[in-house]
Amino acid sequence: MQDVEFTVENSKLWILQTRSGKRTAKSAVKIAVDMVKEKKISKNQAILRIDPNTLDTLLHPSLDEKSELEVIARGLPASPGAVSGKVVFSSDEAERLNDTMQNVILVRVETSPEDIHGMHAAKGILTSRGGMTSHAAVVARGMGRPCVSGSSEIEIDYKNKIFKTKNREINEGDIITIDGSTGRIILGEVKTVKPEISGDFSKILDWSDKARKLKIRTNSETPYDSKIAREFGAEGIGLCRTEHMFFDEERILSVRQMILSKSKEDRDKALEKLLPHQKNDFIQIFKIMSGLPVTVRLLDPPLHEFLPKNKSEIDDVAKSLSLSNEEVQTRIDELHEQNPMLGHRGCRLGISFPEIYEMQCKAIFEALIECKNQKIKPIMPEIMIPLVSTEAEIRIMKELVIRIAAEIQNKNRTKIKFLVGTMIELPRAALKAKDIAKHAEFFSFGTNDLTQTTFGISRDDSGKFLNDYIENKIFDIDPFISIDDGVGDLIQFAASNGKKQK
Amino acid sequence: MQDVEFTVENSKLWILQTRSGKRTAKSAVKIAVDMVKEKKISKNQAILRIDPNTLDTLLHPSLDEKSELEVIARGLPASPGAVSGKVVFSSDEAERLNDTMQNVILVRVETSPEDIHGMHAAKGILTSRGGMTSHAAVVARGMGRPCVSGSSEIEIDYKNKIFKTKNREINEGDIITIDGSTGRIILGEVKTVKPEISGDFSKILDWSDKARKLKIRTNSETPYDSKIAREFGAEGIGLCRTEHMFFDEERILSVRQMILSKSKEDRDKALEKLLPHQKNDFIQIFKIMSGLPVTVRLLDPPLHEFLPKNKSEIDDVAKSLSLSNEEVQTRIDELHEQNPMLGHRGCRLGISFPEIYEMQCKAIFEALIECKNQKIKPIMPEIMIPLVSTEAEIRIMKELVIRIAAEIQNKNRTKIKFLVGTMIELPRAALKAKDIAKHAEFFSFGTNDLTQTTFGISRDDSGKFLNDYIENKIFDIDPFISIDDGVGDLIQFAASNGKKQK
Repeated sequence: MQDVEFTVENSKLWILQTRSGKRTAKSAVKIAVDMVKEKKISKNQAILRIDPNTLDTLLHPSLDEKSELEVIARGLPASPGAVSGKVVFSSDEAERLNDTMQNVILVRVETSPEDIHGMHAAKGILTSRGGMTSHAAVVARGMGRPCVSGSSEIEIDYKNKIFKTKNREINEGDIITIDGSTGRIILGEVKTVKPEISGDFSKILDWSDKARKLKIRTNSETPYDSKIAREFGAEGIGLCRTEHMFFDEERILSVRQMILSKSKEDRDKALEKLLPHQKNDFIQIFKIMSGLPVTVRLLDPPLHEFLPKNKSEIDDVAKSLSLSNEEVQTRIDELHEQNPMLGHRGCRLGISFPEIYEMQCKAIFEALIECKNQKIKPIMPEIMIPLVSTEAEIRIMKELVIRIAAEIQNKNRTKIKFLVGTMIELPRAALKAKDIAKHAEFFSFGTNDLTQTTFGISRDDSGKFLNDYIENKIFDIDPFISIDDGVGDLIQFAASNGKKQK
Repeated sequence: MQDVEFTVENSKLWILQTRSGKRTAKSAVKIAVDMVKEKKISKNQAILRIDPNTLDTLLHPSLDEKSELEVIARGLPASPGAVSGKVVFSSDEAERLNDTMQNVILVRVETSPEDIHGMHAAKGILTSRGGMTSHAAVVARGMGRPCVSGSSEIEIDYKNKIFKTKNREINEGDIITIDGSTGRIILGEVKTVKPEISGDFSKILDWSDKARKLKIRTNSETPYDSKIAREFGAEGIGLCRTEHMFFDEERILSVRQMILSKSKEDRDKALEKLLPHQKNDFIQIFKIMSGLPVTVRLLDPPLHEFLPKNKSEIDDVAKSLSLSNEEVQTRIDELHEQNPMLGHRGCRLGISFPEIYEMQCKAIFEALIECKNQKIKPIMPEIMIPLVSTEAEIRIMKELVIRIAAEIQNKNRTKIKFLVGTMIELPRAALKAKDIAKHAEFFSFGTNDLTQTTFGISRDDSGKFLNDYIENKIFDIDPFISIDDGVGDLIQFAASNGKKQK
């Protein structure tokens, strides 16, 4: 599709210049499909004529224009999609609220690499400064987060945690909606319309499905996300992070009791309270994913991530465990880590506290049996042991999974198929993939953690020097955005050595 | 040398049993040398008949028995050597005082893996509980730290930071001396006698020198340690950690000014104040090591390690920089890292703040020229760029070193030989050793950091699960004590690929 500039001079047509025409995602799709209809190009050519990044705009919710909208300001449409959430002014606060399952909009004058964790945690990003290629805009598009950038109509006051528009004052915690497709900033929560895959877009996706070799699964740990993903064509769940199920308000107290209890008995009691919740989550997800594979990762983050952070939370958990606040505080201090990324997490928790992984396996297998009893076509459960670095870890953890599976199958006089595998996310795991594969029935690759350990760079802290590294051309691109060559060597080594074993 | 049990019955000699005779290190040495003299064994056999671990006892200072000693209690002679220092009751306090160059004796009821950092920081260790194979005893011997264990004659009160003997009360901060060779605990500082290598011991060491293939250099960053090491036969310095020179009381304020200053101008001023100190340290060390190689590592730890930790220190630095305490506190907060082990450190500092490495190189080259002017036989300087993971980092840092070297050589119209190399201490550096070797003239291996990143285990935090790992036989031995097989694979790969390039 070409833009053509021409003129007519003395009845003669002059073609001055021509170039590829700029077009929206929707037009690009229509033009490509039309040209196939006109037999000008093949279906595969049609696919290649569409920039896949732009299709993003067709996959995000848009505002329900039938609702009444109070637009309070406008900015640049930096990253498509409409989303509502509580206003926060710092990345730490965004992360804190996200951890407690609250939707937030991160509002900053501009963002920097130090805000990455907050941008991850936020559902949408709003800045008062910076264009379509500002840090906020580029990173938000990369993450698929809606973003309105450079809204000079808002004035941010970090100190008082407030932003002002011409007529309104918005405090931290107030709900706003941003529409990254049009640049509108709207007061309150607005209904959004789910994107539909139909017409020409649906055709392009069908043709792509026929040409592609890669299969695609979703990350999901909620029934809601699982349902959307399946509607969008996900071929299973590739990573269901069970810890996200622990943060729910109803459960977090039991989680804290489990962590802070002083005896195995108390811990078991707390775990018993968690079991039905986790089982119920799995039943819902397994129903939605019926017939597809679901990879469930057992508890991964260090326990201190779940701990109470303020006095009233400490009061609650101390009271519930009949402990003094000092005792709770002491335990919190004990769990503090110098380098939590390299700390007591992943399968190291399963080794130290097997009862936690046992409860999780019980929840998975009881959920599988419940689905079977309800005559639902079974999923293929893949139980993932995280952060393995030695053969012994996966062997011991696999024995645990098999033991719990046997207990529950015997009790219910039924058989369940399942796989046990691991995520290769540490250099040593990649180096010893051949030994680990003796016990693992599948490998996933955790490239974020693998990049952190291979480089010895904490993603949380890299903001302090990443700019210097990009300016000095040491990194062409942030290795957390595009996989590094050295990390790639490890992945290749692990894949090929794992396959040699099995 | 055999113990023989015999009896004479009815004028007949009966040999009942015989076994290898237990002997002290000194006797083992004498017996081995005597048997060579009597031509019963070869010199190499003599060496192999001595347990090298026991020789440690001959290499530690012993108490000057001519001094008057007030022995206040006794315990087990768990790890040889005599040492004096301030009493501390926690590993964190031991580390804190050690960071400010104070000698401490760590006093604990017993130690656990969580105390490793404190045992490293302490000059000696005293416990009230545990035998010759207790954690404290085993680890202290491994580290070569004097230790008196299981002294039931002392009663430790952590809360009041005090320990009581029959007649005395010792407070935190009081000075005591422990003698790990005899188990004595003595009030106050006692003169010690340096060990001498002479007689039979000296012979065994001479014979070993002829048989050995490995060369041995020392870790040292002070003239004092360098002198002792050279007297003990060190063939150079393998690691001179320049940051230790920053902690001296006279300098730490300038270091803090350098870190906290807001402009490059202020930073340069602070660095100028540090230059003569660092240069003077190097001159002294280079004189002592005359004729031998000295590997100097440029600044490695994250800057926040140098920051003021209490209010009076903050006051001092704020005043000296005409900043408010809040401004200083804000900068301290900015420098805080989630995972300092994976943070803004090593050559990442050299990339962000080249002026720091420039000052250090100036100090090294000016010291070399000063030594040359004094007609001292030159050392071979090996300048080590720490924490390299990419070819670009070593290339850029090497250019900096060469530029400073050229400036100083031109100014002084003289030539200096030197090498620039790196420490391979990250998995990616090992994987890309061939590329890094294009610019590196030597490799060292930093196995502590390499083990931490290869396993994804922070040594500081591993105490929480290391016992579980040893009980479950996941680790046969702590990988920070004996190099792991997977880490070994990386070292082998790096050594062989580095040599392929050069």
